[in-house]
Amino acid sequence: MSGVDILGYSAGFITTLTFLPQVIKTYKEKSARDISLNMFLIAAINETMWIVYGFLKNDMVIVLTNAVVLVMSLTMIYFKLKYNKVAKVELE
Amino acid sequence: MSGVDILGYSAGFITTLTFLPQVIKTYKEKSARDISLNMFLIAAINETMWIVYGFLKNDMVIVLTNAVVLVMSLTMIYFKLKYNKVAKVELE
Repeated sequence: MSGVDILGYSAGFITTLTFLPQVIKTYKEKSARDISLNMFLIAAINETMWIVYGFLKNDMVIVLTNAVVLVMSLTMIYFKLKYNKVAKVELE
Repeated sequence: MSGVDILGYSAGFITTLTFLPQVIKTYKEKSARDISLNMFLIAAINETMWIVYGFLKNDMVIVLTNAVVLVMSLTMIYFKLKYNKVAKVELE
C-alpha cells in the first residue's frame, strides 16, 4: 500500500467521524435550534445516493463509510425535530 | 456516460452543497451556540487531506469538490467563533 493509498484510507476514515462531535454535543445539550435541518436532510439523501452508487460499483468502502454517516445524519434529524428550541432553562 | 456515472456525479455535486443550508442559516440568525466547532474543524482538516489526495492522484473532481466544502467549513468555523452565544435579544 502506497503513501497515497494510506492518505486516502485515513481521509475516508476521518470522513465517517465528521458528524460525531455534533451528534455528541446535541445529545448532551438537548438543544438544536442553531442546527440546519436542511443540511442533514440533504446529507441523508446524498449518503443514500452514495450507498446506491457504491452497491452498483461493488465498492463496499463507499457503501460502508456512507452508511456510518447516514446513521449520524438520521440521528441529527431526529435530534433537530426533538430539541428544536432554546433550552427552556435559559428562558425562565 | 452510464446511469451509474450520472448518479456518481450527481451525488458528488450534492455533496458540495451539504453545508450550504447551515452557512445560510447561521449567517442569517447570527447564532451558532448549538453548532459543534469540532465537527467543522475535523471537516476542514479532512477536506484538506482529500485535496492533497486529489492532487497526488491527479483527480481534479476530488480537489474541486473538497475545495468547495473546505470554504464552507472555514466559513462555519469563523461564524462559530463570531456568533458562539445565544442571540442577546432573547436574553433581554
